[in-house]
Amino acid sequence: MNSQNGFLMYELAKRLYRIPRSLTGNGVRETLNILKEICPLLKIYEIPTGTKVFDWEIPKEWNIRDAWIKTTDGKKIIDFKENNLHVMGYSLPVHRKIGLDELLAHVYTLPENPGLIPYVTSYYKERWGFCMSELQKNELKDSEYEILIDSELKDGSLTYGEIIIPGESEKEIFLSTYICHPQMANNELSGPCVAIYLAKWLSERQNRYTYRIAFVPETIGSIAYLSRNIKEMKDRVEAGFVITCVGDTRAYSYLESPYANTLADRAARNILKQHAPGYKTYSFLERGSDERQYCSAGVRLPVCSVMRSKYGEYPEYHTSADDLDLVSAEGFEGSFELYKKILLALEHNRKYKIICACEPQLGKRGLYPTLSTKETKSIVADMMNFIAYADGENDLIAISDITGVSVEKLAGIAEQLLESGLLIEG
Amino acid sequence: MNSQNGFLMYELAKRLYRIPRSLTGNGVRETLNILKEICPLLKIYEIPTGTKVFDWEIPKEWNIRDAWIKTTDGKKIIDFKENNLHVMGYSLPVHRKIGLDELLAHVYTLPENPGLIPYVTSYYKERWGFCMSELQKNELKDSEYEILIDSELKDGSLTYGEIIIPGESEKEIFLSTYICHPQMANNELSGPCVAIYLAKWLSERQNRYTYRIAFVPETIGSIAYLSRNIKEMKDRVEAGFVITCVGDTRAYSYLESPYANTLADRAARNILKQHAPGYKTYSFLERGSDERQYCSAGVRLPVCSVMRSKYGEYPEYHTSADDLDLVSAEGFEGSFELYKKILLALEHNRKYKIICACEPQLGKRGLYPTLSTKETKSIVADMMNFIAYADGENDLIAISDITGVSVEKLAGIAEQLLESGLLIEG
Amino acid sequence: MNSQNGFLMYELAKRLYRIPRSLTGNGVRETLNILKEICPLLKIYEIPTGTKVFDWEIPKEWNIRDAWIKTTDGKKIIDFKENNLHVMGYSLPVHRKIGLDELLAHVYTLPENPGLIPYVTSYYKERWGFCMSELQKNELKDSEYEILIDSELKDGSLTYGEIIIPGESEKEIFLSTYICHPQMANNELSGPCVAIYLAKWLSERQNRYTYRIAFVPETIGSIAYLSRNIKEMKDRVEAGFVITCVGDTRAYSYLESPYANTLADRAARNILKQHAPGYKTYSFLERGSDERQYCSAGVRLPVCSVMRSKYGEYPEYHTSADDLDLVSAEGFEGSFELYKKILLALEHNRKYKIICACEPQLGKRGLYPTLSTKETKSIVADMMNFIAYADGENDLIAISDITGVSVEKLAGIAEQLLESGLLIEG
Repeated sequence: MNSQNGFLMYELAKRLYRIPRSLTGNGVRETLNILKEICPLLKIYEIPTGTKVFDWEIPKEWNIRDAWIKTTDGKKIIDFKENNLHVMGYSLPVHRKIGLDELLAHVYTLPENPGLIPYVTSYYKERWGFCMSELQKNELKDSEYEILIDSELKDGSLTYGEIIIPGESEKEIFLSTYICHPQMANNELSGPCVAIYLAKWLSERQNRYTYRIAFVPETIGSIAYLSRNIKEMKDRVEAGFVITCVGDTRAYSYLESPYANTLADRAARNILKQHAPGYKTYSFLERGSDERQYCSAGVRLPVCSVMRSKYGEYPEYHTSADDLDLVSAEGFEGSFELYKKILLALEHNRKYKIICACEPQLGKRGLYPTLSTKETKSIVADMMNFIAYADGENDLIAISDITGVSVEKLAGIAEQLLESGLLIEG
Repeated sequence: MNSQNGFLMYELAKRLYRIPRSLTGNGVRETLNILKEICPLLKIYEIPTGTKVFDWEIPKEWNIRDAWIKTTDGKKIIDFKENNLHVMGYSLPVHRKIGLDELLAHVYTLPENPGLIPYVTSYYKERWGFCMSELQKNELKDSEYEILIDSELKDGSLTYGEIIIPGESEKEIFLSTYICHPQMANNELSGPCVAIYLAKWLSERQNRYTYRIAFVPETIGSIAYLSRNIKEMKDRVEAGFVITCVGDTRAYSYLESPYANTLADRAARNILKQHAPGYKTYSFLERGSDERQYCSAGVRLPVCSVMRSKYGEYPEYHTSADDLDLVSAEGFEGSFELYKKILLALEHNRKYKIICACEPQLGKRGLYPTLSTKETKSIVADMMNFIAYADGENDLIAISDITGVSVEKLAGIAEQLLESGLLIEG
Repeated sequence: MNSQNGFLMYELAKRLYRIPRSLTGNGVRETLNILKEICPLLKIYEIPTGTKVFDWEIPKEWNIRDAWIKTTDGKKIIDFKENNLHVMGYSLPVHRKIGLDELLAHVYTLPENPGLIPYVTSYYKERWGFCMSELQKNELKDSEYEILIDSELKDGSLTYGEIIIPGESEKEIFLSTYICHPQMANNELSGPCVAIYLAKWLSERQNRYTYRIAFVPETIGSIAYLSRNIKEMKDRVEAGFVITCVGDTRAYSYLESPYANTLADRAARNILKQHAPGYKTYSFLERGSDERQYCSAGVRLPVCSVMRSKYGEYPEYHTSADDLDLVSAEGFEGSFELYKKILLALEHNRKYKIICACEPQLGKRGLYPTLSTKETKSIVADMMNFIAYADGENDLIAISDITGVSVEKLAGIAEQLLESGLLIEG
């Protein structure tokens, strides 16, 4: 079943890959509607252009139907339908015949990676542009070109999705991912694909925490989302994670919250240390996604981020090479399982207190294995270590950090001891 | 006089070596009576079989008179009188003729150390067994054997000893050692031998602290002891030490309390760092003796352990090789002196406050050496460093940790300054 | 202008070099009067001999006019006017003819550095002596010598200087330097030369803090100064520095306060880390100047010391080799600039709080560079990092420590954001 999930997530990424997403527009709506098929709890919200969200304002809505550059003999040499990245995000509409010089003033390339198309946007200054590889640019001749960008930039709305999965408690775990990048796989699609399958998994089990899962355009979307929900979130969210760049199979990365001291950080480090020991730590100074808003000085939600190859740190980032070959079912699956472990650690993370003085007698309660093997010795050692630190002060993550026993195992031990009447919640 | 103590402790160990001790029984009583000769303050207590002690119950009392295996021609090939370890502790009585196969089902060896007899007990399951070396087992022929275990397992009591040495204060320092292992030298006898001579030394001086010294069978004994004294001990004990494995001359070991932060830990580390700098630190996860009870979550007394070669960590542990050759007068002496230093550090460990602003003028008070040598410079430096940190916040152990000057020296300096009227207790 | 200051400080040192300073006397007064020319705010105070200052008493005043050793043919072979160090400080007057043996009983040399004259004093025992190089001593013949020490030791007073530069706040920054060593450059004159030019610089600007700058003879002078000002200083001083040994060009040194945790320590470390990364740290155990008094247990002002080559740690220390060649305009200048940076960091060191939730929109406020270069990117990153940590808890030094951005830059950023209305003082 596990590898099944990886396959399903990868198939979902393939399905979403060519949809022209941007900060706003129909690409976002189409994406959210497909995600809703996986988890019908997803609700889609619209915020009108011009709405004030903290220090910002919802921008105009941008949509694009087609774009190309044709030579004088009518041959399309650049075609948006071949790659969404060919158009600069938020490009104004244009349909003209122009000379090479004027065209070049609107062409963006990556000279240091001549075979790749860069990802470029201009959200806050109105202009238009084409992105292409340096090789493609070098083939342009001093001639006339017909260019088309069939886009529309006008008042509309910003679209985002939200899933609330109620748990036993009103206290929340928060997950956030973004849905505003066109045709890139690790830096974008891996996030919503893993997040929606986590949502599906969470929605099918009984949870202690309530889960709040946001699918927002990056930056303006998380600001807008906070502007509507900050009070509730400050009261309720105990840990949160920005899910992005979780599709490749390179080492795991962990981006700390501002002081690296939240429950989210503690859970992430505990699981990474035990299950991805070579993981790389980045300080909050190296932040770059929506934790910028969630952890900002005036918000300070307990949010960190667990990734594979972090945005900005891998060569394919923000280029046409961040494609479906860079990510894989295996990559999705590993991230999905790791996040499940983090969330389960949080679900299990209670404080307990042993009720008897001294060590309890496990034998008379059937808690002592009758057969003594290396494995049973380790089981007993884990139980005795849990008992030694179950003094009502430490939560399971703390005991796991001290003892090296996983939170999952500790939770199983706590369960047995609760049943034996030796333990109470602390 | 010092080496005299080592010699006396070693002689005591020799005298106690062959007494068949176990969790309960006359061997324990005989041992305690001999210890009482060294320190007559020792009181001996009995707790009847079946008494409930926290989660446990006092077991039946076990006594053994003799045990052997004879060949058909009447030759004793295994003889309890040669080595107590030949009988599994708490063996039921048996006297029968049996074949080799049946015998082998009751034989315990150490195949990886073919020349050594293992130490084996079965306190909580009733059975019988012989322990021997793998070499001895290999010489057994397919023949009939007459076997005898002349033991008795029946209601009786558990025996323990306690010494209380009143001091100026009701606050206590607690020492605990165990008296339940037969014929082994480092892991067992070194503990009570050093502890009883510490008791003798303490009983012959004026102490600030009251000393509580327990001689208990391991685990059930410390649980039983706590069940009778926990309230008083929680109120009074400021530091405690489990004294075990202190007879060899290998490096010192220090086993931390659960959070390594008690006064006992601080005193132990301070003295070890200055007097046994190569000492090895073990975390509480590697515990194995009565600190398991004293430091348990429901008890949490400030107890750690200072040892030589830690139980479980040296090759002779729990075998017939843990004998009188493994330990020595020198080994006992070193441990005895180290524990004296730790206890003196605690005796001296007050907080002080200098009463004048700025540095005092030592010269006019005769505190400044009239001769300036390397040594007198160091004496002045130590005094000035003490004065710099005697701000009423730090106890002497803290000042010693900061300055590297021993608590003993600092106490001497404090004495001089108190006499000069420059210092008050903080 | 900067190198100008180094030159002026070096010229000042040259002017002060030959004045015969000691704990007390006219050399101190003459020195203070010259310093007053640089900063007329300097006030000169006298405390009479015999005045009780905490545990001490103001000593007699010592003055010296001349001293020499003449051979029988009237040739001066040792001449105070050639080097002040030739006379032991506080030498009693003497004028006699004596033989070699008696003379040698009063001669001090440095056998391990045969070419250098040592610096020797005898403040608290009345005697007389000549200091010379080992080479000079070796040339003394078994003959008669006429010796003169034309000194005077009698009731008078101890002289010190004080500058108070009022700021917006009554809270103070305290600087202390000493003026009691004859004819030595790094260990003495560098301190008052840098301190007086810092005073001049501070007196010509508007300061937030009030500055208290003391020019005192070492030890007895700082004790006397504290005895007059301790109450006020305990109330007001937020950070202080002992300025000494700041004239050479070797690596910087930082001497910690007793717990290395004061605002002075934090400011010093912040600036040293960014501007003198190879600096050497000394613990308070290695103290040796007036921080001994300012940081004593009964005073505990927040004082540390930033130096070049620390007293006692460089080969020329307390010898005739600590001369005007050892120090330089460049050395003075560097120390002066470093102290300015430390003081400015303290001046700037406020707490701020961002008033909006989430990141603010810099663009609409003109805070976002319209041109994107490596430098503008770094400017934006610095501003965003400041904003991320401006949560009202951190002062600028803390934010600088976290982000690596200098306090000066952060203060500029804070200024911009205050003007934009995005920030308030925290």
